[in-house]
Amino acid sequence: MLRRKEISPVDLVDATLQRIERLNPSINAFLTVLAGRAQRQARLAERELVRRSRGSRANISNPLFGIPIALKDNFYTRGIRTTAGSKILANFIPKEDSDVAARLVAAGAILIGKTNMHEFAYGITNENPHYGPVHNPWAIDRISGGSSGGSSAATAAGMCFGSVGTDTGGSIRIPAALCGIVGLKPTYGLVSVAGVIPLAPSFDHAGPLARGIVDTCILLQAIAGKYPDGATRPDFRKLKRTPLRRFRLGSPGEYFFERVDPQVRHTINVAAKVMEEIGGRIQNVLLPHLADSQEPSTRIALSEATRYHQSQGFYPARAADYGEDVSSRLEMGTQVRAIHYLQALEVKRQVERDFESAFRRVDAILAPTVPIAAPLIGEAEVIIDGQKETVRSALVRLNRPANLTGHPAISLPCGFTPDGLPVGLQLIGPKWGEAALLAIAFAFEQATDWHTRNPTFPAAPARQKAQARV
Amino acid sequence: MLRRKEISPVDLVDATLQRIERLNPSINAFLTVLAGRAQRQARLAERELVRRSRGSRANISNPLFGIPIALKDNFYTRGIRTTAGSKILANFIPKEDSDVAARLVAAGAILIGKTNMHEFAYGITNENPHYGPVHNPWAIDRISGGSSGGSSAATAAGMCFGSVGTDTGGSIRIPAALCGIVGLKPTYGLVSVAGVIPLAPSFDHAGPLARGIVDTCILLQAIAGKYPDGATRPDFRKLKRTPLRRFRLGSPGEYFFERVDPQVRHTINVAAKVMEEIGGRIQNVLLPHLADSQEPSTRIALSEATRYHQSQGFYPARAADYGEDVSSRLEMGTQVRAIHYLQALEVKRQVERDFESAFRRVDAILAPTVPIAAPLIGEAEVIIDGQKETVRSALVRLNRPANLTGHPAISLPCGFTPDGLPVGLQLIGPKWGEAALLAIAFAFEQATDWHTRNPTFPAAPARQKAQARV
Repeated sequence: MLRRKEISPVDLVDATLQRIERLNPSINAFLTVLAGRAQRQARLAERELVRRSRGSRANISNPLFGIPIALKDNFYTRGIRTTAGSKILANFIPKEDSDVAARLVAAGAILIGKTNMHEFAYGITNENPHYGPVHNPWAIDRISGGSSGGSSAATAAGMCFGSVGTDTGGSIRIPAALCGIVGLKPTYGLVSVAGVIPLAPSFDHAGPLARGIVDTCILLQAIAGKYPDGATRPDFRKLKRTPLRRFRLGSPGEYFFERVDPQVRHTINVAAKVMEEIGGRIQNVLLPHLADSQEPSTRIALSEATRYHQSQGFYPARAADYGEDVSSRLEMGTQVRAIHYLQALEVKRQVERDFESAFRRVDAILAPTVPIAAPLIGEAEVIIDGQKETVRSALVRLNRPANLTGHPAISLPCGFTPDGLPVGLQLIGPKWGEAALLAIAFAFEQATDWHTRNPTFPAAPARQKAQARV
Repeated sequence: MLRRKEISPVDLVDATLQRIERLNPSINAFLTVLAGRAQRQARLAERELVRRSRGSRANISNPLFGIPIALKDNFYTRGIRTTAGSKILANFIPKEDSDVAARLVAAGAILIGKTNMHEFAYGITNENPHYGPVHNPWAIDRISGGSSGGSSAATAAGMCFGSVGTDTGGSIRIPAALCGIVGLKPTYGLVSVAGVIPLAPSFDHAGPLARGIVDTCILLQAIAGKYPDGATRPDFRKLKRTPLRRFRLGSPGEYFFERVDPQVRHTINVAAKVMEEIGGRIQNVLLPHLADSQEPSTRIALSEATRYHQSQGFYPARAADYGEDVSSRLEMGTQVRAIHYLQALEVKRQVERDFESAFRRVDAILAPTVPIAAPLIGEAEVIIDGQKETVRSALVRLNRPANLTGHPAISLPCGFTPDGLPVGLQLIGPKWGEAALLAIAFAFEQATDWHTRNPTFPAAPARQKAQARV
């Protein structure tokens, strides 16, 4: 529509800013809104579109050109405050862009704001002690999930067209599932994390959050680095034409379907049936080393996170400036022994081999993203199948495997609980297999309409018009 | 001579076995002598040489064909006891060859025996509590150095033509220096360590020990894996023709020339003069992060070693079966924290960058291999420049840097102390730069005659004849 001049980039940015103005006070998705900067960029974009036939050098053919995109606040943005959701970096203004920020700018995207997140990305509820919690657009008293909670809530509520977040133990997929959008954690190393404030470097990934598969693919194309020779690069134009016919899905019963809320389980089972209807053959796969991988995974994350905060002089020097949950995890990280860290790296290689052996038989593994729908803000524990579990453990446990091994994993909307809370379907694929993973996800999306559902907000006629324009 | 039929492989092996029989009781370099097996191999080799013109398929053109070579006892040898100098593996007989053993066999070398070593390669004196110390051929009351002490002493005393050892903190270069032979620790990853009983995988290297540079190069060619594109593969035939003209040597005064015994320092200074006479320009280089790298290096080695012994069920289960020095180091390894291990990996990268920056200005770095000549067996501490230091620390400290960074490093004979003990000159080169490093070492060797000196042993006329034939 921008290129056909049916809408102007200036109007698009203004409508988005109006929507942020209306919804952000109750959702709290943004830490920084870049109103003036985005409007200036939009005016420049408008000029480029007008000048098109007279030799514009801007990247107007890129599908992101002129599109308002939000960035999680742990990506360095030159001249723009980058807090990582912390008090310690509350006034930190980077001198350089992160690779992702630079790539978005190069694609012509308009940076609309920096999003709220779990402090230092070190948690998955997004209850931020310094900037307040991010509220779930589907139920304002519930968590958005985290740590890319602001990115997810902003995308779900139409306060941006998509966002880039980070995922160390599910931080893209968890809030995507709880907010009813798509979140992709790509293959380890595909998207550069240069200029991202690290959490645990062995597990850190950057990736897109969007309302549908096409948008996810467009964002991934903009931020992805090089694929190895022989791998298929994702291409959003080819999504519709990819013939799926019969594809093979793996169901890893023993780990991913244990301790899952019955309503979530039901929704996932219905989604699996849809997969079969569109050509998927589901078979069991074994991932024998997964059961004993949680402790080792945690050890890697704990020690790497503490080492980073120690290397920056943040911890323990400024222990009092962290939220209680983060500082207690940083303290736990000091206790891990090197021999146990090294043992955990051995487990990582075993689980990698498990997945690689499964991917010789199936194209993707199908699982819930999280075993529960969004918990209430302030809730510390949930009961699943009669068993008590911390919210943290419940939300992380089905996500960490793909961080441990580096395989790409996507969460996509697959239905709602009877309470109207979104449920996320997780697909995990072979390394560098994003193109195939997105093709399967797109086929599912085409066969359903979950991605077209939007949360409703208190009516405000003038602003609803703005929403429609977005 | 073998190919010209001036000597028979059978005579060569017999002469070597006779020399082992005469000298090994006092030197203790071998844990296993493969007399019968070597003689059978020699007869087969003889037949191949006779059959040559009638289409032999054996690798008779390889310079190692028919040559008696010894292997350190931590390389798996199929069907041959592999103790790693330990009580725990005293009766271990591998079902497979290590990659190095397989490559030596493929080159036509004759495996003459498995050599004594520091227990599990975890020390540098080679005072083995289970199999006795290796004695230095130049002074029988002194240590050979370790952990490849048996390989070095056997090579120095003419009980084999060369050997392959391992080097995690100097274990090839230290005994090479103390025994007056050449020892090369190649670039990390160049020689496969598959089938080697590990010490600390981040630092473990396999490499050749020999009496001169040509032999070292021949052995390296036989055991080396692939070089990256663009690198020059070493070729012993080209050594003589490599025109050196003016080459640049770096002198890293601040670390490598601190606390060096005055006699060793004098010998190294004379060697540096020789280098200048043959075309070397010596300039100072800075390696600023080296000074603080010892503690971190030790931490990596300690924790990785303990993790390996733990993963095999050796430690702590069989703590009583280790020598006191090794079990106490294994215990120290349990204490290292993961955050300090991770910090050490950061130091590793800093020191790597220091070396890489130095190698933009010089072709090799010149240093002593060890700051002292061979200590007495049983000696725990030495005094250097009036300062007390443990033998372990003194022997390791100038070697560990190249293990930390993975750069190739060679020790070559460069003279003797007034007491007649050998001194080793260390050259460290850029990664994958073995060809240039060997060319510089060869030019030095050609300009001197240190490598032609041999230790003398009590006369025994008949056997001296055998020695001459070897």
